[in-house]
Amino acid sequence: MMKELLLAIAFTVISATAALAAGDLPGQAATTNVPGSDYPRVLPDRRAIFQLKAPEAHSVAVEIYGQTYAMAKGDDGVWSVTTPPLVVGFHFYSLILDGVHVNDPGSRTFYGTGIDSSGIEVPETGVDYYHKQDVPHGDVRIRLYHSKVTGKWRRAFVYTPPGYDDHPNRRYPVLYLQHGSNEDETGWTFQGHANLILDNLIAEKKAVPMIIVMDNCYAMRPGDVGQDPQIESPLRPNFPAFEAVMLQDVIPMIDATFRTIPDRDHRAIAGLSMGSNEALRVGTGNLDKFAYIGGFSGGMNGLHTDPLDPATAFGGRFKDGAAFNAKVKLLWLGMGTAEPKPFPAAIGAFRKMLDDAGIRYVFFSSPGTAHEWLTWRRDLHAFAPRLFK
Amino acid sequence: MMKELLLAIAFTVISATAALAAGDLPGQAATTNVPGSDYPRVLPDRRAIFQLKAPEAHSVAVEIYGQTYAMAKGDDGVWSVTTPPLVVGFHFYSLILDGVHVNDPGSRTFYGTGIDSSGIEVPETGVDYYHKQDVPHGDVRIRLYHSKVTGKWRRAFVYTPPGYDDHPNRRYPVLYLQHGSNEDETGWTFQGHANLILDNLIAEKKAVPMIIVMDNCYAMRPGDVGQDPQIESPLRPNFPAFEAVMLQDVIPMIDATFRTIPDRDHRAIAGLSMGSNEALRVGTGNLDKFAYIGGFSGGMNGLHTDPLDPATAFGGRFKDGAAFNAKVKLLWLGMGTAEPKPFPAAIGAFRKMLDDAGIRYVFFSSPGTAHEWLTWRRDLHAFAPRLFK
Repeated sequence: MMKELLLAIAFTVISATAALAAGDLPGQAATTNVPGSDYPRVLPDRRAIFQLKAPEAHSVAVEIYGQTYAMAKGDDGVWSVTTPPLVVGFHFYSLILDGVHVNDPGSRTFYGTGIDSSGIEVPETGVDYYHKQDVPHGDVRIRLYHSKVTGKWRRAFVYTPPGYDDHPNRRYPVLYLQHGSNEDETGWTFQGHANLILDNLIAEKKAVPMIIVMDNCYAMRPGDVGQDPQIESPLRPNFPAFEAVMLQDVIPMIDATFRTIPDRDHRAIAGLSMGSNEALRVGTGNLDKFAYIGGFSGGMNGLHTDPLDPATAFGGRFKDGAAFNAKVKLLWLGMGTAEPKPFPAAIGAFRKMLDDAGIRYVFFSSPGTAHEWLTWRRDLHAFAPRLFK
Repeated sequence: MMKELLLAIAFTVISATAALAAGDLPGQAATTNVPGSDYPRVLPDRRAIFQLKAPEAHSVAVEIYGQTYAMAKGDDGVWSVTTPPLVVGFHFYSLILDGVHVNDPGSRTFYGTGIDSSGIEVPETGVDYYHKQDVPHGDVRIRLYHSKVTGKWRRAFVYTPPGYDDHPNRRYPVLYLQHGSNEDETGWTFQGHANLILDNLIAEKKAVPMIIVMDNCYAMRPGDVGQDPQIESPLRPNFPAFEAVMLQDVIPMIDATFRTIPDRDHRAIAGLSMGSNEALRVGTGNLDKFAYIGGFSGGMNGLHTDPLDPATAFGGRFKDGAAFNAKVKLLWLGMGTAEPKPFPAAIGAFRKMLDDAGIRYVFFSSPGTAHEWLTWRRDLHAFAPRLFK
């Protein structure tokens, strides 16, 4: 029974390989495809070609970057479409097959939007800071740990920089780096390429060697329901215990396991979107533990755009700007210029409050990118060189 | 544009959570589901319930374990089916939506059968050796390395046992563990739970602490085409350089990077299916490097069932049984009793050749399991305690 299945797969792969060898296909198979898959493809002008063999289907479309493109059926039962030029970077996408959002079998999957979703990388010409290069590479360790706070086993991805194993007496600073809503601890490695970004920065001596801890932001105590009232995300409402997990479980585990420099001057926290809210909240609420704090595409006010008064907002922790500035070595906010509502107004309201309080921060703007991974790769690439110096 | 998408996802997840909270669903959500997904579910008698919302579809079915079960459409546009009791263990599966094999959006994906595929874990009552338990856990490191043989960057998953970082002067034996056809270096961790199996065995003092290197069996030199003539798999034909990669790239990299005991008495090689063929070939062809050799669901003869003469087969490397027995501390062959054709006959022909040559080996039989991951978890669980003692 399984043999037939395996042989069917074999013939599929062999015929795909033969087509590739013929060299008659335009552009390049996306780097995000499964091995041997010729589709989707990206053309030199950033148009993409999507295909699906579906002889019995009534309609097939691709949904990417907020747009839906209908696919046309060929005589061979293969549906296809060539999109307009796409924005560079990594995009989640779906095929819509007779009304159902499904993955493209030609694509690798990446956990985001709450599912293991298809994704496509549209190359940026002349940019290689998040590519594998001929430099020393750190490891990303998949680490299990038991949380006293949640009572469950949890998983962190931990980047150790090149040379970590070769210098058993050397100690390192640590960046705690959070994912966004409906993502998990894998995102910064598999979509964000945080490890490659740091490998390249360290090789260029633009960033100091550091450990990066990528944990899962979702955390509930036994019996917890609902969401953190300080963040009010409309998304998966189950991270009320994140701060406790970070302070009581993760940081002590990391400091006990890895050769860290366990003080605030050598500890940073950052995150993206929902993770930005969490990083800013945990960071600014625990200035005895963190000296560097970064928010990528998010403030501390969730999706709210109302004005914030530094005297009262967030328990008044921003009201004394001079005291805040004296303690915090770096406060960083970033976003893409193409981010959709309500992010510009929400982040704008948060920045206005910081400005009103006289708080210093770096604002980073990513040209042409939306609420997506390329914005956050660019954030990390610009943020990491400012840490621990 | 993205906001609408995110909100749509949020409502889906919240409604699923509400249904779960009501406690009115039978059985358990599969442990292999994405977070918050109630389907598929497994009932106490191992029947499984699959669902897909597809109001516009004309037919939906689930294909699992070589069988196809048609799903029925409810008034709400949700298709569902309850299968007969399933065999325990991990099964890849697909939904068939209007004739197209697609993933189940409720399931995590696992790389196998050449794609990132849905998978479902059917629990084994009373068996916990591959579960997360309250024992010390090792790390699995995602390690990049450059291959001189292929000219490319490659990726290995490397398990370091509990305590590895706490004992900087201790050195460890190494098991090189290969995946099967159309799988990759992730399979032994994400489907096989090799790390958990060893964590548990080490905690019980049934296995000695060891490093496990899970590399990618697919390897081609620049210009290579076609498959290894010694294996003749009908599957993805691109691993002619595997032995060279293992001997010239992987083992030197591992011995230079990790605290190994770099001799044959502390080096094992094993694999499953196609990886069994590769492990047996590399192991028996390099007895100066390996003292322990394991083949899980495969011999060295691929899918061939013809009789093999030890005097001539495989360059005559098995003809002197006494010499082989004197060198090899363990030769292991295993398979499931429910494996389909041609595996029983092919492995039988290989065993017959070993018997004819007077070669000692352990034969392990996994009751009731097919050419699937539970067979290989059981193999590893029984094989690892015999290593390095």
